[in-house]
Amino acid sequence: MKGVMYFDQAASSWPKPPAVMDAMMQCMHEFAANPGRGSHQMAVKASRVLFETRKNTARLFGIRNPNDISFALNTTHALNQAIKGFVKAGDHVICTNIEHNSVRRPLEYLKASAQVELTYIPSDEQGNIRLDELKKAFQSNTTLVVVNHSSNLLGTIMPVGEIGDICRAQGVKLLVDAAQSAGILPIDVAGMNIDMLAFPGHKGLLGPQGTGGLYIHPGIDLEPLLHGGTGSQSEAIHQPTVRPDRYEAGTQNTVGIAGLNEGVKFVLAETVEKIHEKEWRQTQLLMEGLLGIEGVTVLGPSLGQNKTGIVSFNINDADSSEVAFILDQSFQIAVRSGYHCTPLAHEAAGTLAKGAVRASVGYFTTDNEVVALIDAVKEIQTQYAK
Amino acid sequence: MKGVMYFDQAASSWPKPPAVMDAMMQCMHEFAANPGRGSHQMAVKASRVLFETRKNTARLFGIRNPNDISFALNTTHALNQAIKGFVKAGDHVICTNIEHNSVRRPLEYLKASAQVELTYIPSDEQGNIRLDELKKAFQSNTTLVVVNHSSNLLGTIMPVGEIGDICRAQGVKLLVDAAQSAGILPIDVAGMNIDMLAFPGHKGLLGPQGTGGLYIHPGIDLEPLLHGGTGSQSEAIHQPTVRPDRYEAGTQNTVGIAGLNEGVKFVLAETVEKIHEKEWRQTQLLMEGLLGIEGVTVLGPSLGQNKTGIVSFNINDADSSEVAFILDQSFQIAVRSGYHCTPLAHEAAGTLAKGAVRASVGYFTTDNEVVALIDAVKEIQTQYAK
Repeated sequence: MKGVMYFDQAASSWPKPPAVMDAMMQCMHEFAANPGRGSHQMAVKASRVLFETRKNTARLFGIRNPNDISFALNTTHALNQAIKGFVKAGDHVICTNIEHNSVRRPLEYLKASAQVELTYIPSDEQGNIRLDELKKAFQSNTTLVVVNHSSNLLGTIMPVGEIGDICRAQGVKLLVDAAQSAGILPIDVAGMNIDMLAFPGHKGLLGPQGTGGLYIHPGIDLEPLLHGGTGSQSEAIHQPTVRPDRYEAGTQNTVGIAGLNEGVKFVLAETVEKIHEKEWRQTQLLMEGLLGIEGVTVLGPSLGQNKTGIVSFNINDADSSEVAFILDQSFQIAVRSGYHCTPLAHEAAGTLAKGAVRASVGYFTTDNEVVALIDAVKEIQTQYAK
Repeated sequence: MKGVMYFDQAASSWPKPPAVMDAMMQCMHEFAANPGRGSHQMAVKASRVLFETRKNTARLFGIRNPNDISFALNTTHALNQAIKGFVKAGDHVICTNIEHNSVRRPLEYLKASAQVELTYIPSDEQGNIRLDELKKAFQSNTTLVVVNHSSNLLGTIMPVGEIGDICRAQGVKLLVDAAQSAGILPIDVAGMNIDMLAFPGHKGLLGPQGTGGLYIHPGIDLEPLLHGGTGSQSEAIHQPTVRPDRYEAGTQNTVGIAGLNEGVKFVLAETVEKIHEKEWRQTQLLMEGLLGIEGVTVLGPSLGQNKTGIVSFNINDADSSEVAFILDQSFQIAVRSGYHCTPLAHEAAGTLAKGAVRASVGYFTTDNEVVALIDAVKEIQTQYAK
């Protein structure tokens, strides 16, 4: 919206590179046919865009075969496919207490309904876990470890590579929730021993909502979450085994994926290293400003430490939703308040009672906007000063 | 694509009303924030568009409470939610042999994995079932009947209202797959005793791909297919019970739904009666033309009978994919060939060996295009004449 300073990038990035919109409109106007369901030119063009997006995404994540990526409605869909498709009755799963509800709720559902055991590795106040605690948590029936690459509340970055090494040594599979890291932090599924990677299309990859995906190591076969038509092997009663069809029943979001392709290409061209460096620098600018205001506390990693573009904070004991409301109404600044679907991370950070205001920067956030946010918090703080 | 005559409307409708693209671009440019995950202006605007789409869709289907509709990636997603969320071990389910694989495969999966019994009501060659056969199929453990409102191969229309009466009398729930009827045939969930209705956004409702939804009667509670964040009740371990959040975990496809809203509004303004009448008239024109060509056989209801905009045919014993290829390459006519994800319907129609060419008309198909298709088939037929 005109004049809005948008600090809700961790929920959905905005604005998008213009090429994203151009590709979506080209798709709607020229080839919005059903990919893989026809062999006519428009359907072929639609299939080609899907494959090109798969190829570019594979390149970004170090994935050898693009067909090991299947598209999904969102990260939650991808995570449900991974978790429910992999975990069996009697299995033990390890996660951490900074997981988003998109990981916690499917796991708690399996725990309640399918005799699955679940261990949460506790984190400290800043969202860090101890690897020796992870090592101690393995049991003979542990089959899966699920970790958030970066906390959506604290911005803390998990040592995924080291966790991958530990899992590999234990013969246990690793599922990484890249909701806050895809397009923002370097990800290399081979180098990091990641067996499954769930990612959103509409956050760091700068694509539209309604997109996301799941990488599944070729050695893993999951029970599909969605059974249905795939345009292939129509006569078979059961879901085809060929990828990506096995995990992509029904018509895919061609127009969204056409947009995602341009987002991924933008990220590849800019490089995640540059994007992360830029976002990190702005978090430091923001944190410095906020920490200079009396009564303001900032959650997560300290100044100078590595993190993603998320800065959560509170002003004294002010209700986070009230602060967010004032920022929106009086300053045209969009942030998020409340619990951010991650109650255990709030427990660790000591903010379960009041939640937190979350400001998240993106690649298009300007330093001027960061300064405006700091100034606004200063002004609001005077109202709440004790 | 320029110059293409598009007869693959049953796979995905094209073109779309211009307002669909306008709404999508407005969303991408102005408010592509995360609906329900923030209270700032952009998030509120996103939530409002979702609600408006729910309201318009509810109006179209005679649904009292818009929140009984949850959005989905596609009809397959909606059907999987309905079927897997409802059916329990020991249940008996009835469907027909004209079901799409999006119904058949989830049911066969449950049959193979969860002690679910399954009965297919056979159809005749034209895709009609006998209601007395349906009545005889009920068992003491029957909990669900699933029917395709209109066959995606034959265009046959199921007597959903009468089936609804039978199910109600038996105390059994009815799930309708409206993949080929939403926006094309009158649907009134209350008047037709429909307990669950799965529908696509990108076919008769004229919205973009990546959209669809499921209506669930307020008296039915389903186990969610996707567990995850909903932006509500973040602190709860389990999925909230409030609708539509219960069935909408993760970020919704706001941009797609903004487009869908305009498609639904277009349908409401034109009326399904007018749309169906127009499409039916063109199927008659097409059938008349095709039936006048030596060696051409047309599947499904006879000339003069009610049906949706689908005309499947074969030219002598020609391979359907070869015919479709020639239509595409030499005549710029897009049709679909093969099995259309519905092998049992082919068995009923006697075309399991060779498949069929499917030409499907939409609201924007012109009579001139229909004539061009007839002329092209005439020309191709001379090559295959015995």
